[in-house]
Amino acid sequence: MSADHPPSTALLTDHYELTMLQASLASGTAERRTVFELFGRRLPEGRRYGVVAGVGRALDTLERFCFDEPTLAVLAEVVDEPTLERLARWRFTGDVWGYAEGETYVPGSPLLVVEAPFAEAVLLETLLLSIYNHDSAIASAASRMTRAAGGRACIEMGSRRTHEEAAVAAARAAYVAGFAGSSNLAARQRYGVPTTGTSAHAFTLLHDSETDAFRAQVASLGAGTTLLVDTYDVAEAVRLAVEVAGPELGAVRLDSGDLADLAHQVRAQLDRLGADRTRIVVTSDLDEHAIAALGSAPVDSYGVGTQLVTGSGHPTVGLVYKLVAREGADGELVGVAKRSTAKESWPGRHWARRRHDAAGTATAEVVGTGTPPPPADDERDLLVPLVRAGEVVGREPLEAARERHARSRDALPMASRSLLRGEPVLPTVRP
Amino acid sequence: MSADHPPSTALLTDHYELTMLQASLASGTAERRTVFELFGRRLPEGRRYGVVAGVGRALDTLERFCFDEPTLAVLAEVVDEPTLERLARWRFTGDVWGYAEGETYVPGSPLLVVEAPFAEAVLLETLLLSIYNHDSAIASAASRMTRAAGGRACIEMGSRRTHEEAAVAAARAAYVAGFAGSSNLAARQRYGVPTTGTSAHAFTLLHDSETDAFRAQVASLGAGTTLLVDTYDVAEAVRLAVEVAGPELGAVRLDSGDLADLAHQVRAQLDRLGADRTRIVVTSDLDEHAIAALGSAPVDSYGVGTQLVTGSGHPTVGLVYKLVAREGADGELVGVAKRSTAKESWPGRHWARRRHDAAGTATAEVVGTGTPPPPADDERDLLVPLVRAGEVVGREPLEAARERHARSRDALPMASRSLLRGEPVLPTVRP
Repeated sequence: MSADHPPSTALLTDHYELTMLQASLASGTAERRTVFELFGRRLPEGRRYGVVAGVGRALDTLERFCFDEPTLAVLAEVVDEPTLERLARWRFTGDVWGYAEGETYVPGSPLLVVEAPFAEAVLLETLLLSIYNHDSAIASAASRMTRAAGGRACIEMGSRRTHEEAAVAAARAAYVAGFAGSSNLAARQRYGVPTTGTSAHAFTLLHDSETDAFRAQVASLGAGTTLLVDTYDVAEAVRLAVEVAGPELGAVRLDSGDLADLAHQVRAQLDRLGADRTRIVVTSDLDEHAIAALGSAPVDSYGVGTQLVTGSGHPTVGLVYKLVAREGADGELVGVAKRSTAKESWPGRHWARRRHDAAGTATAEVVGTGTPPPPADDERDLLVPLVRAGEVVGREPLEAARERHARSRDALPMASRSLLRGEPVLPTVRP
Repeated sequence: MSADHPPSTALLTDHYELTMLQASLASGTAERRTVFELFGRRLPEGRRYGVVAGVGRALDTLERFCFDEPTLAVLAEVVDEPTLERLARWRFTGDVWGYAEGETYVPGSPLLVVEAPFAEAVLLETLLLSIYNHDSAIASAASRMTRAAGGRACIEMGSRRTHEEAAVAAARAAYVAGFAGSSNLAARQRYGVPTTGTSAHAFTLLHDSETDAFRAQVASLGAGTTLLVDTYDVAEAVRLAVEVAGPELGAVRLDSGDLADLAHQVRAQLDRLGADRTRIVVTSDLDEHAIAALGSAPVDSYGVGTQLVTGSGHPTVGLVYKLVAREGADGELVGVAKRSTAKESWPGRHWARRRHDAAGTATAEVVGTGTPPPPADDERDLLVPLVRAGEVVGREPLEAARERHARSRDALPMASRSLLRGEPVLPTVRP
């Protein structure tokens, strides 16, 4: 991406946001003060908690949300002249509060609260939802995987199984949720996510023999490299790997077959060959359940691909962005909500706190409207300022989000460790 | 995206492709001629056919795949000096053939055949797979939906439920597979996909009453607009909509509740009010099964969101990119394949044809290696030139892909119309 001319993000949105702007400009309601909130009515089926991710990316795209000439040229066919004029001077002047990145959440947690004129807040709906729905889906799956892995490292390797830009965001979100690194080089470039990788089967097949391939790799990358040992015969490859690299061989990678069984055999073989510090990396359609099942196998780290980037069965988390309050004719904010169906809505602007017991374990998500009472000692505020009068104030290093996630998850009740389907681990209660 | 400095796509890849390049440069195998192929070992479970999409996007990104200064700066920490030197003069000089965009496919169809030195072809693995796995997943789901919809229009509205850039690609892929349009404005800008949209519940809630909201919308967008009638009470809203817009009202949109039941009620009410040409648009977590179930309801078009952009249960189609042949020490190409597991592999470079019966119905995917025999009258070649000596030659208008998909799907056996799980509709046979 050119640093000089970062592209506008304003068209990464739905057509109807622009027609709504047009109609509201005509009716004189476009500049009414509004509060929109981004939240989930429920977690994906059976999930116990969610993980907020994408906050930093949302702030980046907000700063590039503008109606420059190429953008207006497209919209000239979509909206009328007064709307184009309003867009030409459009900038976001509002305030945004939100759950900080890496925080855990439950149904009803107000992950973002956007206060701005309708003409500004309405245009952000789709882009904010795209980022939060995708990145939180990945982080929520990743958090289950790193938990299932215990102290063992998880490496994100799913780029090839998702859209090329979604892949970069997925690597970032997985890192927030405790992954040790990724294979994705753009994630390294943009976000400083540590990357790793050594070789594929194609590398072995390129050479005239497995010996040639292993020698070439060790000569170039050193004995500490990871050799892929399942191109032909695993036991023969492991023997050859130690012969070529010596007992200092960094790791061997298994990418197919019965991984638990193979890991035991390979561990025993490596130990017999004196390579007792050589690690075993497994990669092959792993998800959190497969990772947990390998808990007793002598595996040192997990490479996770498809299941991570597709949210392990839940590629989106169903977050919505709803108008909860708007200025009335008298200038006061009034709570509003759709009421035609069973979808539970709760009008008004929300605040949120997490309540803990004496041992520091979280016990409830307290979500209220109106003026919040003074916080109790066992409660912490969940909404932090992200944007003030249009200026981004909530930017932080990715490491901060990663550390926050670890702390927030550690404070959840024991039930959060279960991979079984169940209810959210925290009740959402009114004060 | 800045037109002057389109960003390099070279880091949208996996770390190991660069370390493999380094090791192959050191061992002298980097410039060996290779053939890589992109294909699926199977279709997603129960699917009868797949749809190739992303071809045009892949060609675009290939042209932007280069190692400029910012890219090399990142890689200085990843690979050694000789590799950086090779990358600085890297350009793709090879040939690529592939299934044209919109074509249908089955397991074993060689969707891409890439012939180039290892140093070039190996670096394209992840990016090509990302694009093909994502876009083909969306197009494959979209094709089932447009088939289930019969002659009724399907509109893509899922941007908010997927990564913001994946959303643009999804709108494009859905259009290839027969969707009439999308809500995504960037897809309109980049690819000319028709876009539509009118209003959300927030627009109604912004106003002091539903009457105010409808009046505002009709005044600004005309009587031909689509009014959203389920914010409060549907019957009252329909009455109001016709009162405000007159019988020329373009359409009403239903976004919740029992859609079949509601559609019948609303149709009867509209007809009673003289608005017998007012259309009914339904949107609410539709997938191909819901669309089929609404076949007998008086619905005019379907807005499809989440299920489209997440591939209706299959967000990725599991395509792989494998080395199938490489130059040996004698300079001749030799077929190669991994052989440690049950994954079926078939070494050598492949050609592919579709065979038809006398009525023009497809009967088999003929996939062979070596020199192809002369094609029979009832066979057509499936591989077309996409890149020749590094130059893109396979670019075409998106409409061409859309028309190709309609033709290719129409020629499939009747079983392709079934939404039930089953085997691929065409057997893959050797000549």
